[in-house]
Amino acid sequence: MPETLIKVDLKQSPYENEKVHNRWHPDIPMACWVNPGDDFVIETYDWTGGYIKNNDCADDVRDVDLTTVHFLSGPVGVKGAEPGDLLVVDLLDIGAKSDSLWGFNGFFSKKNGGGFLTEHFPHAQKTIWDFHGLYTTSRHVPNVKFAGLIHPGLIGCLPDRKMLEIWNRREVDFIATQPDRVPPLANPPFAKTAHAGAARGDLKAKIAAEGARTVPPREHGGNCDIKDLSRGSKIYFPVYVDGAGLSVGDLHFSQGDGEITFCGAIEMAGWVHMKVDLIKDGMAKYGIKNPIFRPSPITPTYNDYLIFEGISVDEYGKQYYLDVHVAYRQACLNAIEYLTKFGYSRAQAYAILGTAPVQGHISGVVDIPNACATLWLPTQIFDFDIRPGASGPVRAVTPGIEVPLSPDL
Amino acid sequence: MPETLIKVDLKQSPYENEKVHNRWHPDIPMACWVNPGDDFVIETYDWTGGYIKNNDCADDVRDVDLTTVHFLSGPVGVKGAEPGDLLVVDLLDIGAKSDSLWGFNGFFSKKNGGGFLTEHFPHAQKTIWDFHGLYTTSRHVPNVKFAGLIHPGLIGCLPDRKMLEIWNRREVDFIATQPDRVPPLANPPFAKTAHAGAARGDLKAKIAAEGARTVPPREHGGNCDIKDLSRGSKIYFPVYVDGAGLSVGDLHFSQGDGEITFCGAIEMAGWVHMKVDLIKDGMAKYGIKNPIFRPSPITPTYNDYLIFEGISVDEYGKQYYLDVHVAYRQACLNAIEYLTKFGYSRAQAYAILGTAPVQGHISGVVDIPNACATLWLPTQIFDFDIRPGASGPVRAVTPGIEVPLSPDL
Amino acid sequence: MPETLIKVDLKQSPYENEKVHNRWHPDIPMACWVNPGDDFVIETYDWTGGYIKNNDCADDVRDVDLTTVHFLSGPVGVKGAEPGDLLVVDLLDIGAKSDSLWGFNGFFSKKNGGGFLTEHFPHAQKTIWDFHGLYTTSRHVPNVKFAGLIHPGLIGCLPDRKMLEIWNRREVDFIATQPDRVPPLANPPFAKTAHAGAARGDLKAKIAAEGARTVPPREHGGNCDIKDLSRGSKIYFPVYVDGAGLSVGDLHFSQGDGEITFCGAIEMAGWVHMKVDLIKDGMAKYGIKNPIFRPSPITPTYNDYLIFEGISVDEYGKQYYLDVHVAYRQACLNAIEYLTKFGYSRAQAYAILGTAPVQGHISGVVDIPNACATLWLPTQIFDFDIRPGASGPVRAVTPGIEVPLSPDL
Amino acid sequence: MPETLIKVDLKQSPYENEKVHNRWHPDIPMACWVNPGDDFVIETYDWTGGYIKNNDCADDVRDVDLTTVHFLSGPVGVKGAEPGDLLVVDLLDIGAKSDSLWGFNGFFSKKNGGGFLTEHFPHAQKTIWDFHGLYTTSRHVPNVKFAGLIHPGLIGCLPDRKMLEIWNRREVDFIATQPDRVPPLANPPFAKTAHAGAARGDLKAKIAAEGARTVPPREHGGNCDIKDLSRGSKIYFPVYVDGAGLSVGDLHFSQGDGEITFCGAIEMAGWVHMKVDLIKDGMAKYGIKNPIFRPSPITPTYNDYLIFEGISVDEYGKQYYLDVHVAYRQACLNAIEYLTKFGYSRAQAYAILGTAPVQGHISGVVDIPNACATLWLPTQIFDFDIRPGASGPVRAVTPGIEVPLSPDL
Repeated sequence: MPETLIKVDLKQSPYENEKVHNRWHPDIPMACWVNPGDDFVIETYDWTGGYIKNNDCADDVRDVDLTTVHFLSGPVGVKGAEPGDLLVVDLLDIGAKSDSLWGFNGFFSKKNGGGFLTEHFPHAQKTIWDFHGLYTTSRHVPNVKFAGLIHPGLIGCLPDRKMLEIWNRREVDFIATQPDRVPPLANPPFAKTAHAGAARGDLKAKIAAEGARTVPPREHGGNCDIKDLSRGSKIYFPVYVDGAGLSVGDLHFSQGDGEITFCGAIEMAGWVHMKVDLIKDGMAKYGIKNPIFRPSPITPTYNDYLIFEGISVDEYGKQYYLDVHVAYRQACLNAIEYLTKFGYSRAQAYAILGTAPVQGHISGVVDIPNACATLWLPTQIFDFDIRPGASGPVRAVTPGIEVPLSPDL
Repeated sequence: MPETLIKVDLKQSPYENEKVHNRWHPDIPMACWVNPGDDFVIETYDWTGGYIKNNDCADDVRDVDLTTVHFLSGPVGVKGAEPGDLLVVDLLDIGAKSDSLWGFNGFFSKKNGGGFLTEHFPHAQKTIWDFHGLYTTSRHVPNVKFAGLIHPGLIGCLPDRKMLEIWNRREVDFIATQPDRVPPLANPPFAKTAHAGAARGDLKAKIAAEGARTVPPREHGGNCDIKDLSRGSKIYFPVYVDGAGLSVGDLHFSQGDGEITFCGAIEMAGWVHMKVDLIKDGMAKYGIKNPIFRPSPITPTYNDYLIFEGISVDEYGKQYYLDVHVAYRQACLNAIEYLTKFGYSRAQAYAILGTAPVQGHISGVVDIPNACATLWLPTQIFDFDIRPGASGPVRAVTPGIEVPLSPDL
Repeated sequence: MPETLIKVDLKQSPYENEKVHNRWHPDIPMACWVNPGDDFVIETYDWTGGYIKNNDCADDVRDVDLTTVHFLSGPVGVKGAEPGDLLVVDLLDIGAKSDSLWGFNGFFSKKNGGGFLTEHFPHAQKTIWDFHGLYTTSRHVPNVKFAGLIHPGLIGCLPDRKMLEIWNRREVDFIATQPDRVPPLANPPFAKTAHAGAARGDLKAKIAAEGARTVPPREHGGNCDIKDLSRGSKIYFPVYVDGAGLSVGDLHFSQGDGEITFCGAIEMAGWVHMKVDLIKDGMAKYGIKNPIFRPSPITPTYNDYLIFEGISVDEYGKQYYLDVHVAYRQACLNAIEYLTKFGYSRAQAYAILGTAPVQGHISGVVDIPNACATLWLPTQIFDFDIRPGASGPVRAVTPGIEVPLSPDL
Repeated sequence: MPETLIKVDLKQSPYENEKVHNRWHPDIPMACWVNPGDDFVIETYDWTGGYIKNNDCADDVRDVDLTTVHFLSGPVGVKGAEPGDLLVVDLLDIGAKSDSLWGFNGFFSKKNGGGFLTEHFPHAQKTIWDFHGLYTTSRHVPNVKFAGLIHPGLIGCLPDRKMLEIWNRREVDFIATQPDRVPPLANPPFAKTAHAGAARGDLKAKIAAEGARTVPPREHGGNCDIKDLSRGSKIYFPVYVDGAGLSVGDLHFSQGDGEITFCGAIEMAGWVHMKVDLIKDGMAKYGIKNPIFRPSPITPTYNDYLIFEGISVDEYGKQYYLDVHVAYRQACLNAIEYLTKFGYSRAQAYAILGTAPVQGHISGVVDIPNACATLWLPTQIFDFDIRPGASGPVRAVTPGIEVPLSPDL
């Protein structure tokens, strides 16, 4: 039975757990060490460290302090790993904590992070999803059930000092181009809420002052939120520091491509069973800058889709140049509009797109001026027929169910 | 046996074929009429109308006049179709013309259209792909073979006058924001090379003057270049004019998500066997603005992928805000770099990404400031093992094969 | 464009076509020769040589002379092929003849061949299936439509003399164990209706007298009726004679595992585009006795099934010992019974199991005394929901449609 | 968190656990009761109740007393279930016991049960498989690794008295036709080793005397050993007694179609998380005699196969009439022979066919006198290329590894 190297107690603050951290910095002390070839288990908090509760009120989503996230478990030191190596990680299995068989999806208030469709969903909202073995359902989103495509939203190795400096300079300079923007263009280091793992004293202060925030995906991987980097997959991570320093967190029971609701996927506390190995000097051998991976042979096999197209003209008629972001937003809005015809509220439809194994494809990206993106909605997750027909849509969705909403204070 | 309603002769100029046109305009005369429930065959030119030849020289790709494209077959009038209906199109089958069992993929010169990676591939290049039943191979790209995911790059119904005016105003205004850009931001109406089908005299002149160019995808579908809108799929198109006016062209034997090389996919002349039907008032019933579709049950089943990540920091280190276009470009560049380690030239690698059934996913699009896009490269299309291993890549690609290149004059 | 090496004219008797034969014998003259690496097209009759007609009467199924079948196109000689080699055949594509876009499925009379469920369907019946591009439907079996899994029912190389003698002795001896059985245990050589290709005079007489019948699958492959040996697959055939002598026929637009109706699949005339190559001495190198193959990447992706179990106790309560044949028959009878609850006649249900891409699995074969077989019925081929529910089955099948039946005379 | 209604302690004899039984009989007391709509967890022993150990010696496989098997957990009573209903069981998840992350596969001695290929493997042999999250590997079978298709080999409801009598009479009469056969034709009731759950005294004696053995699959399902009845699937079971009485056991981490090694699959102790519901009077409504089920959306997606054909002529040249059992045996022998060319021992190859997600199809079953069966070997489970090539097989299998064998005493 594999050893659990890092444990988390959901009743304890993550700040009290020395094997947890919430910033990226080369000097974060290794939480534990393993050998190449070892397999082991790492437990993790949900990304907010337990702030969001299993209830029917979205106040917590509205009020969460986003400078505290994401709480990661690690770093795990791998003996013999050196800069330039590839760290090969097998995600052997992932699951929810057995005392926490539920997850949450939320829309942030536009004033506190926002999201992909924040103009359309400006207020904090929350849905709770219960896990039934391989499946999930929500008391806030009726008539839909699907198998989980369980994955970590966030996983990667520690940056070295040079990489950290590139990140901080790049993002701080970027913020400076629109310093008053809400939400901001990026998140700079922020010492007050930093958690530096086992670091103490001056070292802790240094990490807090310099540590890169965990929000964006970067060269090392990090918060990629790739739904297909799921249990069963094999990942090749760039190594920047001796020992690699692998950290993981932000587990998702399921997510649609884009994680469009931002708070985001079906977020859960859980555990990751993984195995590590090394390809010495693999970055140069294979020309690797960002992680690459092979997907799992165990993924939901839904294959009947209704596919929505979107182009890079926004909902107000404004033209953008080959902008896939805008195109995908239109595809999402089209799907939401469609689902309302069957009785879903717009918030329920948005929650489905954020949580179900929806695919988002970059379909055409050269036909000036319009990019074309497609959103693939699996039809087999609904307990009624959502396909178009000559007689028009049937309002099959159970009425009277709402997605909790908490207006800004 | 279904009737062939529109025939094309590849030895004849498309301008001489009255059932072909290359602009969108409500007044293009219907090329033929069918009833709901009918199935029939439409032949098409390749998108350039036969300009690109099956040879080992890229001069034609360099010199092609892009104001002439795309040559579409149609419009097919559907009796009883009215504005607001959905035209249901079953793509029953699609194939290459039996006297033309090959296709081309090209990179345009940066001075003549460019492409997704035009900074890296500034010159005209061309690869020829031969069709062997369900499969294709190229004499310019060794060690790769795949089954076709055959689809029309371009299909849709005629716009009405109001829609046409929106398009023209939107795009002309957009060009005006950077009028001297190369390549331009968009393509305005251009009378000289317009082909208005069977229209003559004043009507022809009017269509030529006002007709929207066929380059971008728009509300009606059009040049979506969605690889999964393939033979066997079922599409629901908005109808804007009486009779719908369905046109199709730009057939692809195969394409990767994004059609990143622009000239683009494996382009071919061929035929489409389709069936049409109507959902009366379907646009309102289902809240449809852009087409939606269901994919085919007959698609290549490659499911072992090597997946490359990209983030919205460009290859020069510049930061972009949640820009999926930039992120996907990085994923593509990462894949190209990787493939060169096995012996492919960069041009060969680029051609593979443009033509093979590569997936491009919008993986994360909310983690400021970085979007994360993934490129899924099917490993099963190569005749050697492209997966990473401890011993490093083997240079298995047949050496000495070049992608023809024609420098700008 | 690949050359058509063997053509068939559906208006001409197959006996008049010298490149067609209906027996296996080493001395059948090669119909044509190719080189390893060549690809080419072979046209074929339907297995009965055009006897079954596209009409609504089953008299032809009742009256067909089964000593005439199967009409095969070939043999194709492959230069350099020697006994002990493996002939590698790529089925590049397969299709129906363009002047014959339909196929038939039938149940033979118990007095003329019978079938898997002949006790339950003792009379000749027939269904006609029309091809709509990739799809098929039948005017005799409503509410069902599916994509074709097109394959040759019969393909293989000529036996050598030794192999032929083994076959004839084995089967003639077997018949002798129950000489009066109806239907017989096997079919011995039968000179009267033999077609020996281009052979003439004594040679023809010898082939007619000795030639093995084409009915059963044997060591060389032959009439395997494997639905997954479909277009796009790659097969490795044992070679017994110089030149290999590859013949093919009995094309099926689609078939369920077992080809349970015997006449059988959706039978059609058509063409095969194939490529041949050699693995010298491959039989010994790989220990090959029967053909092996790799399936196609282009197959229908239906993956939601209703699975019926059967055990080796027959419908009269009789116990059999690990008899998969009996178990599969029970699974089939269970599925037929189930489908009648939605309004299908038993004959329609039987026709669906014989023609649709139904899977038949040998699920358990060691738990004495009962074998367990499973029949997998794809739910996505029906235009209504066939899954069980609390409210019971809805009789959604269009009433009033019959499967033509012709009683024995 | 779902309640665990039945617990097993692997250190305790299953005979001491009142919620376990090893015979089928209507009077076995319900171990617990649930309501329709409930979900809950049931733990189970491995089928031998812990007799087979995780070591490198096959003595236990040789010596196991097969009259003791299978140890099932249950029966679970479902309130409101009545004869004629369908019990709908959702297999929400299944796993190994966390203190027992391994399983075994064995070949029984011909004198103690035998197996599908017992003539070729007459002695007891055993392989141990370790579980690594979703995957398994064996120290006795190198170079192969696959994801589990986890399922219960045995699940079903209690028979009523009438059904029990049919079973006993049918099988006892069958044994009487060859009473001295080794192995026997079937297994009659056997009181000495019966475990009647919580029954005591006369009731226990009655159950022991009359209880049907658990070996074969029967009308109620039972020991079907269907690999696709896996976690995530939904099953509809016939109900014969008030309360239904659902029992489950014989969990498999993975199995090939046929479970050909008999001891059999990768056998493990574990737990089943399931949900139950009812379709009242469902047997008549849907014409159900045997269970039916829908497969899981979470199954290994291996889809590149090497397919071996077999016909109903046995390895000694003897002809059988449409005997799928014989045909499948030939396909298996062909696959074993093939695998030895890469360096596997015959026992290792046999173990792979028994444990990996191999498919066994009933391909053709009407072409007298030969049935054709196919064995589908997934190529993606090997860490080397097992496909045929011009240069012949490479002996890639790690040499020097043996499958433990214990000769008969």
